[in-house]
Amino acid sequence: MKLTLKDGKIIEFSEKLTAGDAAKSISEGLYRNALCVRVDGQLKDLSYTLDKDCVFEVVTFDDEDGKAVYRHTTAHVLAQAVKSIYPTVKLAIGPSIENGFYYDFDFVSKLGTEDLEKIEAEMNKIIKANLPIERSVLSKKEAAKAFKEFGEDYKLELVNDLPDGSEVTVYKQGDFVEMCRGPHLPSTGKIKAFKLVSLAGAYWKGSEKNKMLTRIYGTAFLKKADLDEYLTALEEAKRRDHNKLGRELGIFMTDENIGQGLPLLMPKGAKILQILQRFVEDEEEKRGYLLTKTPLMAKNNLYKISGHWYHYKDKMFILGNEETDDEVFALRPMTCPFQYSIYNNGLKSYRDLPKRYAETATLFRNEASGEMHGLIRVRQFTLSDGHIICTPEQLEPEFKGVMDLIYFLLRSMGLTEGVSFRFSKYDPNDKEKYINDPVAWERSQAILKSIIDNMGIEYEEAVGEAAFYGPKLDIQYKNVHGKEDTIITVQIDFALAEKFGMSYIDENGEKKLPYIIHRSSIGCYERTLAMLIEKYAGALPLWMCPEHARVMSLTDRTIEKVKELQLRLNAAGIRTAIDVRNEKIGYKIREGQMEKIPYMLVIGDKEAESGVVSVRSRNDGDLGVMTVEEFIALAGKKISERDCK
Amino acid sequence: MKLTLKDGKIIEFSEKLTAGDAAKSISEGLYRNALCVRVDGQLKDLSYTLDKDCVFEVVTFDDEDGKAVYRHTTAHVLAQAVKSIYPTVKLAIGPSIENGFYYDFDFVSKLGTEDLEKIEAEMNKIIKANLPIERSVLSKKEAAKAFKEFGEDYKLELVNDLPDGSEVTVYKQGDFVEMCRGPHLPSTGKIKAFKLVSLAGAYWKGSEKNKMLTRIYGTAFLKKADLDEYLTALEEAKRRDHNKLGRELGIFMTDENIGQGLPLLMPKGAKILQILQRFVEDEEEKRGYLLTKTPLMAKNNLYKISGHWYHYKDKMFILGNEETDDEVFALRPMTCPFQYSIYNNGLKSYRDLPKRYAETATLFRNEASGEMHGLIRVRQFTLSDGHIICTPEQLEPEFKGVMDLIYFLLRSMGLTEGVSFRFSKYDPNDKEKYINDPVAWERSQAILKSIIDNMGIEYEEAVGEAAFYGPKLDIQYKNVHGKEDTIITVQIDFALAEKFGMSYIDENGEKKLPYIIHRSSIGCYERTLAMLIEKYAGALPLWMCPEHARVMSLTDRTIEKVKELQLRLNAAGIRTAIDVRNEKIGYKIREGQMEKIPYMLVIGDKEAESGVVSVRSRNDGDLGVMTVEEFIALAGKKISERDCK
Repeated sequence: MKLTLKDGKIIEFSEKLTAGDAAKSISEGLYRNALCVRVDGQLKDLSYTLDKDCVFEVVTFDDEDGKAVYRHTTAHVLAQAVKSIYPTVKLAIGPSIENGFYYDFDFVSKLGTEDLEKIEAEMNKIIKANLPIERSVLSKKEAAKAFKEFGEDYKLELVNDLPDGSEVTVYKQGDFVEMCRGPHLPSTGKIKAFKLVSLAGAYWKGSEKNKMLTRIYGTAFLKKADLDEYLTALEEAKRRDHNKLGRELGIFMTDENIGQGLPLLMPKGAKILQILQRFVEDEEEKRGYLLTKTPLMAKNNLYKISGHWYHYKDKMFILGNEETDDEVFALRPMTCPFQYSIYNNGLKSYRDLPKRYAETATLFRNEASGEMHGLIRVRQFTLSDGHIICTPEQLEPEFKGVMDLIYFLLRSMGLTEGVSFRFSKYDPNDKEKYINDPVAWERSQAILKSIIDNMGIEYEEAVGEAAFYGPKLDIQYKNVHGKEDTIITVQIDFALAEKFGMSYIDENGEKKLPYIIHRSSIGCYERTLAMLIEKYAGALPLWMCPEHARVMSLTDRTIEKVKELQLRLNAAGIRTAIDVRNEKIGYKIREGQMEKIPYMLVIGDKEAESGVVSVRSRNDGDLGVMTVEEFIALAGKKISERDCK
Repeated sequence: MKLTLKDGKIIEFSEKLTAGDAAKSISEGLYRNALCVRVDGQLKDLSYTLDKDCVFEVVTFDDEDGKAVYRHTTAHVLAQAVKSIYPTVKLAIGPSIENGFYYDFDFVSKLGTEDLEKIEAEMNKIIKANLPIERSVLSKKEAAKAFKEFGEDYKLELVNDLPDGSEVTVYKQGDFVEMCRGPHLPSTGKIKAFKLVSLAGAYWKGSEKNKMLTRIYGTAFLKKADLDEYLTALEEAKRRDHNKLGRELGIFMTDENIGQGLPLLMPKGAKILQILQRFVEDEEEKRGYLLTKTPLMAKNNLYKISGHWYHYKDKMFILGNEETDDEVFALRPMTCPFQYSIYNNGLKSYRDLPKRYAETATLFRNEASGEMHGLIRVRQFTLSDGHIICTPEQLEPEFKGVMDLIYFLLRSMGLTEGVSFRFSKYDPNDKEKYINDPVAWERSQAILKSIIDNMGIEYEEAVGEAAFYGPKLDIQYKNVHGKEDTIITVQIDFALAEKFGMSYIDENGEKKLPYIIHRSSIGCYERTLAMLIEKYAGALPLWMCPEHARVMSLTDRTIEKVKELQLRLNAAGIRTAIDVRNEKIGYKIREGQMEKIPYMLVIGDKEAESGVVSVRSRNDGDLGVMTVEEFIALAGKKISERDCK
């Protein structure tokens, strides 16, 4: 029997043996690290019997599959521990996930975070006992009988869902039996470092119509140090999570009567968006963009012309019914045809091009209720949208101009770190999603490639990520959770100009089809705000803060001085609030610090007398006493330079 | 037989006589001016026989009913003339309307404006012939037979629509017979001055499902001078009509694929709105308002709490169906519950009040397609919306603050002329429209009355014009067509705070219900823009113009100087464009004048050499040569002072 190893080496055995023994025969060290094996590409337990030639690979924790098996076994240990502490609990399912695992339980009484420690202690006992984990195969009937006996209704339902005649694998550790496809570690003692991290509610089978179960999240690592590092990073991400921090800071909120995916921007959030919107609109105006303000809905006729009705309808909010209503409207998922309509108002000559249209556009996407998240997965959002309509010669310089604008904005927000590029191409096999014109696709992809290559942009290619009407360059951003998101896209459109009958008269008096660049500049405002909150842990760059400074009275005697200073600072372009409550100064400063106010200025009798202020920075602490002029110069410079430090 | 006259005088007749003869017996002069009479309040022809005691009044052109009868008869003359020129035409209906009349015809071939003169000539013939107009009464059957014979299908349909056994009155002049309730002038010669003013399409019975007919609009006056004055005013209103001028100036457009009532603001219009929005938001911020940005849709749960679902649903755009969908959303017709939700985020104390929330809010109203008009009757609009939540003691000062803000904004736009006030009260008999709480209505109306009386505001009262949740003060504006519209409202709300569970903790630690003021400040931006276009015939006040100045080159030699000046003016806060085309300067100036550009600056060799500019104002013509500093001072002052002259 020959085993072909990953490096091509072949080892031979005269008789059948377990995968574990085969690993051991390769090296003792490898065997110690072995979590499971891959036989002809299939994951198997170490107890699996090798009895014929195969490709053989030992899987360790360095392998993603190894991590998954390790954590999946930890989930079994969790279930065993819970079952032993709470015998009335019913088990649902417990898979491994990215960075960990979870298990869903149906508890008789409510579980609290404080209970997790007790469960961890029980898990440690099970690990210490180093119970062997044994696989066996039952018929569907036998399995159903067993889980019925154990009173495991959810398991029973899963068994009953299987086709008749199916085999069911079960894994047993001590007296705990779990239905599972496997593979698993050979014994519970293999688990070295784990942690239960949180509790959540989750519907059985993910459906709102079913019972809400209790989900326990956990993770496991090979080494305590790696676990600690991960937990620290998780804490940090949690601390920065815009969906938590944004609410705590009074930036946004949601309301169940209004609905999921429809956040309300509270005064602070609305002010930040106003600042960003004015900044973007002014910068775009400087760069020759023309502002438009177009309607948020249109008759479905428009979307039939654009093709959205055929390629994108299920993501659109529809008003009315084609069969029963004279007119059917839809909320817009994009601004394109509205700006095209403005372009089409009046004949255009090559002298009029390029036309750069920009709009702070409210858009709608009909996402499923369960998929909503904070300011990021929403049903309504505000995009800095725009379209450049140009001649073929202008395509490359205009594209460069767009990239320059985008980089200027990202730099102004301190967000260039963590940015990467993706060249999104069409998928020739997906006739459903894409306009079926391979020649045009290849041509426009070649044009885009040539432009971004000329610009020296480094990018990854992604097939099947293009818009339905053309290829795009995506600007990707890695968030605090390490997840990569597309934040801005620039697209070349080869299809819609013709569909909308757009044209220009060229130098020779001939009617020509223009090129179109679809672009954002700052992206979606709500998402950008979320990124900013997470990047800066709520302490946004000074220039975009609703409140640059807060002046505080040390005693009631300085209240008038505080109010005078507020007027003076506001007049100097420093947005200033005051705190003249009859409270201890330490309390006022703590509150300002919690609210991430960039500068806190304290005026006591001494300061009032000598016309100075005592300045405290949220980042650098006490800056000492300075004159008002000095403070205005300091803050004014940082604001006007859009300093993000 | 006794006739009681308007002034209480009684005149007696021994036998029956016609109304005309009775008028003549009062005075020859009155008889000459008599158009018809009122007998016991009912309008009757002059040929009507008086045969019993009654209240009797002679109706002349000074009476609104007199004008209507006069113009209605003119409509009959129009129909007779058309019928005589186009024997194949079919008659529909022809009522008098405000300021005139119309008649709907079904022509075999298309009628053009150029045909109106010919029709007017024929009408003059009929008037000159002074045909007596005779009334007679037919049974429904006789009338149906007659109109069938005449081939008047529309009249026949109207007759058939009547209940069986009805009587039908017809009026005959010469050989022309018209079904009509009357009354009418005694003869065609009574008409002294008339004019056919325009043509339009109109659906039979106003329904899109029916045939489109040709509507001829006309008007008639007693004196040629009055007719001419009216026509001049009409021309002026037409010249200023925002729906025409706004399109010509490239401020807005519509697109039939997008839909009626959904105007697109083109770059100029979008820029004006941006300027106004920033102006309003900044002013509101100065006055202590907090900006919010809340979603444009919500689950219907929200509107059930607010009551809109029960009082306002048919004007709302609904997404989904309660019977078949898990969630039903609606586009918002107002901002109230969204800002209340923000108020409700966190407990409020009396120290937190008043809370002044403002939002530049996009709102939606599901109006019927036929009712759309330019920027005024629309399905989507942008309201400067806001709510003040306050204690009872704060209600009056806050209300005054709102009025002060509104007046500041109206003054800044030069729109205070033509403004009047309306105190809109509930209608106790309309249980459908209004929340049924008479005590609360009386109380809140008394509060509002006391506030506006204290402020010395002069107002008219209007029963049945309140919001469903409270009384309001409406700010009315008379537009160029003489039509009065509500442009801004301030409302006192006694109902919604309780419905939304809003509260604050008072000085004694007790939970109290706050008062709410609903208010706009600048009103609806699109409607305000329309008013501005009409008021200024497109030449908007300098400060809100997208382009303050345009610098033009006299020769190609000065192009660089022109560009330099543009940079300099833009840096000085004067929004400046350039025209360096190789065109005659007269042509460039004419174009600038057409576009209502406030200042046109010309640079020729002489100006370039001596560093001056030749300045032309759209209003005052040539201002002569001045230094750039002088021009910046001149324009800068007008801009910063928001000079509307």
